[in-house]
Amino acid sequence: MTATARQESKGSGPFKVVGTRTTRHDGVDKVTGRARFGADISMSGLLHGKVLRSPHAHARIRSIDTSMAEALPGVKGVATAQDFPIIRGQALDFSGAVSNARVTAEVILAHERVMYAGHAVAAVAATSPHIAEEATRLIRVDYEASRVERLGSGEDTSPGSNIASHIQLKRGDVEQGFGEAEVIVERELSTQTIHQGYIEPFASTAHWAPDGHVTIWTTTQGIFGVRASTSAILGIPESMVKVIPMEVGGGFGGKASIYLDPVAAVLSKKTGHPVKMVMTRKEVFEGTGPGCAAIMRVKMGADSSGRITAAQFWLAYQAGAFPGSSVSGGATTGTGPYNIDNFLIDGYDVVCNKQKTSGYRAPGQCQANFAIETVIDELAERLGMDPLELRLKNVVKEGDRMPTGVPFPYIDLRKLEETMKTHPHYSAPLEGPNRGRGVAVAFRGHGGQGAPATMNVNADGTISLITGAIDLSGTRTTVAMQAAEVLGLAAKDVILTVVDTDSVAQTGTTAGSRVTFEMGLAAIAAAQEVKRQMSARAAMLWEVQPEEVEFQDGVFTCNRSPAKRMTFKELAGRLARSGGPITCSVYAPSTGIGPSFAGNIVDVEIDPETGKVDILRYTAFLDAGQAVHPGFVEGQMQGATAQGIGWALSEEYLYTEEGAVANTSFLDYRTPTSMDLPMIDTVIIQVPNPHHPFGVRAVGEVPIVPTLAAVANAVYHATGVRMTRLPMSPGAILEALEAKKAQE
Amino acid sequence: MTATARQESKGSGPFKVVGTRTTRHDGVDKVTGRARFGADISMSGLLHGKVLRSPHAHARIRSIDTSMAEALPGVKGVATAQDFPIIRGQALDFSGAVSNARVTAEVILAHERVMYAGHAVAAVAATSPHIAEEATRLIRVDYEASRVERLGSGEDTSPGSNIASHIQLKRGDVEQGFGEAEVIVERELSTQTIHQGYIEPFASTAHWAPDGHVTIWTTTQGIFGVRASTSAILGIPESMVKVIPMEVGGGFGGKASIYLDPVAAVLSKKTGHPVKMVMTRKEVFEGTGPGCAAIMRVKMGADSSGRITAAQFWLAYQAGAFPGSSVSGGATTGTGPYNIDNFLIDGYDVVCNKQKTSGYRAPGQCQANFAIETVIDELAERLGMDPLELRLKNVVKEGDRMPTGVPFPYIDLRKLEETMKTHPHYSAPLEGPNRGRGVAVAFRGHGGQGAPATMNVNADGTISLITGAIDLSGTRTTVAMQAAEVLGLAAKDVILTVVDTDSVAQTGTTAGSRVTFEMGLAAIAAAQEVKRQMSARAAMLWEVQPEEVEFQDGVFTCNRSPAKRMTFKELAGRLARSGGPITCSVYAPSTGIGPSFAGNIVDVEIDPETGKVDILRYTAFLDAGQAVHPGFVEGQMQGATAQGIGWALSEEYLYTEEGAVANTSFLDYRTPTSMDLPMIDTVIIQVPNPHHPFGVRAVGEVPIVPTLAAVANAVYHATGVRMTRLPMSPGAILEALEAKKAQE
Repeated sequence: MTATARQESKGSGPFKVVGTRTTRHDGVDKVTGRARFGADISMSGLLHGKVLRSPHAHARIRSIDTSMAEALPGVKGVATAQDFPIIRGQALDFSGAVSNARVTAEVILAHERVMYAGHAVAAVAATSPHIAEEATRLIRVDYEASRVERLGSGEDTSPGSNIASHIQLKRGDVEQGFGEAEVIVERELSTQTIHQGYIEPFASTAHWAPDGHVTIWTTTQGIFGVRASTSAILGIPESMVKVIPMEVGGGFGGKASIYLDPVAAVLSKKTGHPVKMVMTRKEVFEGTGPGCAAIMRVKMGADSSGRITAAQFWLAYQAGAFPGSSVSGGATTGTGPYNIDNFLIDGYDVVCNKQKTSGYRAPGQCQANFAIETVIDELAERLGMDPLELRLKNVVKEGDRMPTGVPFPYIDLRKLEETMKTHPHYSAPLEGPNRGRGVAVAFRGHGGQGAPATMNVNADGTISLITGAIDLSGTRTTVAMQAAEVLGLAAKDVILTVVDTDSVAQTGTTAGSRVTFEMGLAAIAAAQEVKRQMSARAAMLWEVQPEEVEFQDGVFTCNRSPAKRMTFKELAGRLARSGGPITCSVYAPSTGIGPSFAGNIVDVEIDPETGKVDILRYTAFLDAGQAVHPGFVEGQMQGATAQGIGWALSEEYLYTEEGAVANTSFLDYRTPTSMDLPMIDTVIIQVPNPHHPFGVRAVGEVPIVPTLAAVANAVYHATGVRMTRLPMSPGAILEALEAKKAQE
Repeated sequence: MTATARQESKGSGPFKVVGTRTTRHDGVDKVTGRARFGADISMSGLLHGKVLRSPHAHARIRSIDTSMAEALPGVKGVATAQDFPIIRGQALDFSGAVSNARVTAEVILAHERVMYAGHAVAAVAATSPHIAEEATRLIRVDYEASRVERLGSGEDTSPGSNIASHIQLKRGDVEQGFGEAEVIVERELSTQTIHQGYIEPFASTAHWAPDGHVTIWTTTQGIFGVRASTSAILGIPESMVKVIPMEVGGGFGGKASIYLDPVAAVLSKKTGHPVKMVMTRKEVFEGTGPGCAAIMRVKMGADSSGRITAAQFWLAYQAGAFPGSSVSGGATTGTGPYNIDNFLIDGYDVVCNKQKTSGYRAPGQCQANFAIETVIDELAERLGMDPLELRLKNVVKEGDRMPTGVPFPYIDLRKLEETMKTHPHYSAPLEGPNRGRGVAVAFRGHGGQGAPATMNVNADGTISLITGAIDLSGTRTTVAMQAAEVLGLAAKDVILTVVDTDSVAQTGTTAGSRVTFEMGLAAIAAAQEVKRQMSARAAMLWEVQPEEVEFQDGVFTCNRSPAKRMTFKELAGRLARSGGPITCSVYAPSTGIGPSFAGNIVDVEIDPETGKVDILRYTAFLDAGQAVHPGFVEGQMQGATAQGIGWALSEEYLYTEEGAVANTSFLDYRTPTSMDLPMIDTVIIQVPNPHHPFGVRAVGEVPIVPTLAAVANAVYHATGVRMTRLPMSPGAILEALEAKKAQE
């Protein structure tokens, strides 16, 4: 990275649009209620689909009798897994998507066995959702109940065990490292199954036309992912499936999975009508993928100077009914902020009879970070060191290796940790009993996959920018801003449209904090190409050579003839009559998004009578690289922190003895409300990312990662009790306080 | 044009997709009723708009009192021309569209004066169309009636006359030419106002969001035209208007004009709701642009050999209430099939108090062709020559000049006329009294404006092709076929989507028979670019140089290593993991579409008791160049001929004494039904167009041009009466027969 590029990213640097707080492109549509979400689809002849779900957590399906349901007036069709060609072994083989798709198909409609309570077994299409629901109750399923698998100790790795896979990362010699340690801390900690907490339930409408073309209107994080899975499950080519994105009312990783789309499509094929399916909240809890529960054992040692000499993590993550937990996210993140010579990390993917888990913001990383940052806090205490001082003592820097072994590019975690340490919050007095302050720091690595963009110049000098990347968090605006920066335009003059799968090149799912970064790179590349074509047009109109045309601050000039001058808008108005409109489509390959770091300082007060935790003050720190839209970055930090607080204090799936989710509403599943949360202060550090021309880093996920541990450490400092199981509900804290009192 | 290219266009030539009769891409959607037309829009909060129209053909508007209408429960807003910023002089100045847009604004809502009966005066938005309609009747308009202008003789060209403009074309010396003539024929002929006969009335829904963005769902031939006019009339930048095309139920030139879009937008702004407006059939007749009526004087002379020595045409075309008839179309077409050394053509654009006319299939050309081909028929008769022999004697060839003076590129009208002359129909006996056979030949020149296209390669080896060109006649298929030809794919593997104005580069209106030709060129250019990128990718995967990769018949090979071989589909499946998807956007500049020729042979029988004309046999001939989809070309020929027969025999606007249209339904306005028409046989000649790589010519409009004269000539040969006024209704023929009988 050059000195200039670093300098550019100082925020008040050379940028005119990037770094400002422009109006959100989709704001008015959303606040006025005109934005159309998945459930807002209506069309003539529309039928409504409903799903029958298993009451058993594990059972063989002996038979399914749909005849009574089919006989109910208003019922137009019933579907089971047998209607999926991939289940019948008729799938085409393309895109390598089939093996994954086969699992997805079995999640979407159970085949021969149900694997969790709430597992979809059959679906009905009828003229009203009420009739469809009534009909599901008329379907007779003959179940033969089986033993229910829970998340076990994970130590049984024999072929008959419920461990699906094992990942191991190591460096150096942990035995030797622990031998060098003055202090060793060892803990077992656990987190429970949690929900992403998106407001909008899944909703999908499908129409299977008689010519075989399937159109799907759906709420999803990735239209091309829906297309690939649906076509594989239905055994038809991808190009026969057109996926039209609706606005998404929150995803957080959960809406990268699909549940309804192929079912609605099959029901449409059977009935000849479009079929709409909208989940209830109960179905979302019972039938879709939550974030993983985990059991983690962490052992870390440090010498008397505070140097961490060794770390050993044993992570068992609950995948649910089919393999695929986010344990690898946990395994590859934990030692991220620390330069440790000796570590051994074992991660286990454990199956059990619960919902197949799905991604949840920084998948797998919060759990591991909770465990490790708790132990780091304890290490500091045992060493008598300030916890941030211990972190600074071991801080990673450019050239050190990530847990995966890949060297860090230019980073400055020291700056973030020093900013935390010198922040007024860190030294403010706590004033009162039962109060404590916790800190935690987190790392997240980000890959990349590249992105396409299409760009057109309008006659009024505005730009149409076309993408297939779903906007979950304001990326219409942040991507448009980057194109505007290149072209000397205002952000509002770049109109970004998210189109359907037939209208744009294959675009990756909105996940991994990648859209502002990767669609940004594509938008910048397209804007550069537009600039090139516009300069050539100016040269043609001026009858000079293209290389004689310069473009700066939205104005074309000719370096040979100062009288020649045209604004971008003026030239745009002349395109139609001087050779036609300017258009381009580009594909920007991935440069690798790279690492991000976040930290939290939190003050809590515990009510010793009830065990309730009040968050008194919260400051979230993030290295955003160049913040494209600081307001949106703050929003990501505040939203992520709120989710992390819920995970730390109140959220968990409660299961009955029979393995069913007992708390399937937002009344019983306790996400924090505005009453539970303080104002979350934010501090953005801007260490430019050498992989992005403006220095942008990924900001969507890493802010949630340190929150669990930060709150848990604060609770410890308020109570003297290490809470090793989340959530730290009032009951759990009260119990821990009483146990401590009994010991004293 | 090279010999090879000429050879290629023989139909059974080297093409694999072009020239075949593939399945229509939009066929199933349309026959199953799922295709969504303008009136099919529904959304929450939708209001319905209705228009109040003038009962007067010409009047000053003293005042408009909307208070009673506004007070009606359910009424949410009322609009008049004063609500258009362009009328209030607040328009922005861009795209040079403002002066045209000002006229459009006054057509859409009358300003200070009404210019024809049916002229829109005000519009109401209400919670139901019935309330809106009731409210229009509560609007009090104080009119001061003025003198009504009809189509005059046109000879008064003084400033106070109703001649808006004059066009003149000449060559050589007509006086000298007529001096060389053996035979001179001179006739005055006329045609009446006629309707394009599209099935779907105009329909538009607009939503003006609080942030100023206007979204319009409309039935139109050109979304970018709607965007330009609407933004100019509303005084907002083009990029604030997004036009979403609905399927179009027929346009034929009529839907290149706009009527409802800015009105719905203004009503939406006033009410804060989306507003839908759908015309009744009566409104279509009263308030939208029909095809021009015309009075034409034709004088032509020939020497005894049949050489046409001179031609003089005087054409007065009715523009309606505002200037802009299609007289230039008439003036530039008439002598097209003939190589005439001396001609003088005067065309007059005449305003009068009728609907402002609009385009209608080959605008202005049918009228002039009717007049000229009638006179040619009479010349042949007077010379004792076969009418096709006379045409062949004067036939134009490559290098001769068009009426405009531009030299003809490679053409072969002789081939078309000889095909007509040797066709069995031409020599078949007529068998019976009151029967006659007519022929006519027509020329149409076509310009061009270029077109953009975006193309993406899907992982299953299909192609997404994105365009802004409205599909009126199956152009999704014919354009896709041309891309498929280049890429060695099947037509169905190229999925063409017509997207909205935000999602594609500025694209011209679907008019002038240009889409299959010009979007075809864009699709070919995009396919060539995809081929180039795919070859480069194959080279990368094979680790060879791009120039070592060859592509033929859908297969990539390496000329250095015969074992290296990948089909297009195989390579497409590897794109995602070898550098990302392939995408491109291109703009194909116009090559000039060039000339087309058509001819008709028709047999009729006249009922001497009723004057009714029965079409006994009809053969339509067309030089299509390379027919992309012969079935669609035949459809164009048959549809155009049916329209021409209606124009010739039964269609005309009837006006009351007060200037109102008296026949505002398809019961009273007589388009031909299936009962009126024979099977129309088609003969496609394929003379390759040197301006298109596959030799394609324009086929959409020219087939209607010869029909009026061919039918009139047949009627003459059946009755001995030259019918000089269209339509040749039973009453008109009976009257002419009686007049002839009285003379005998």
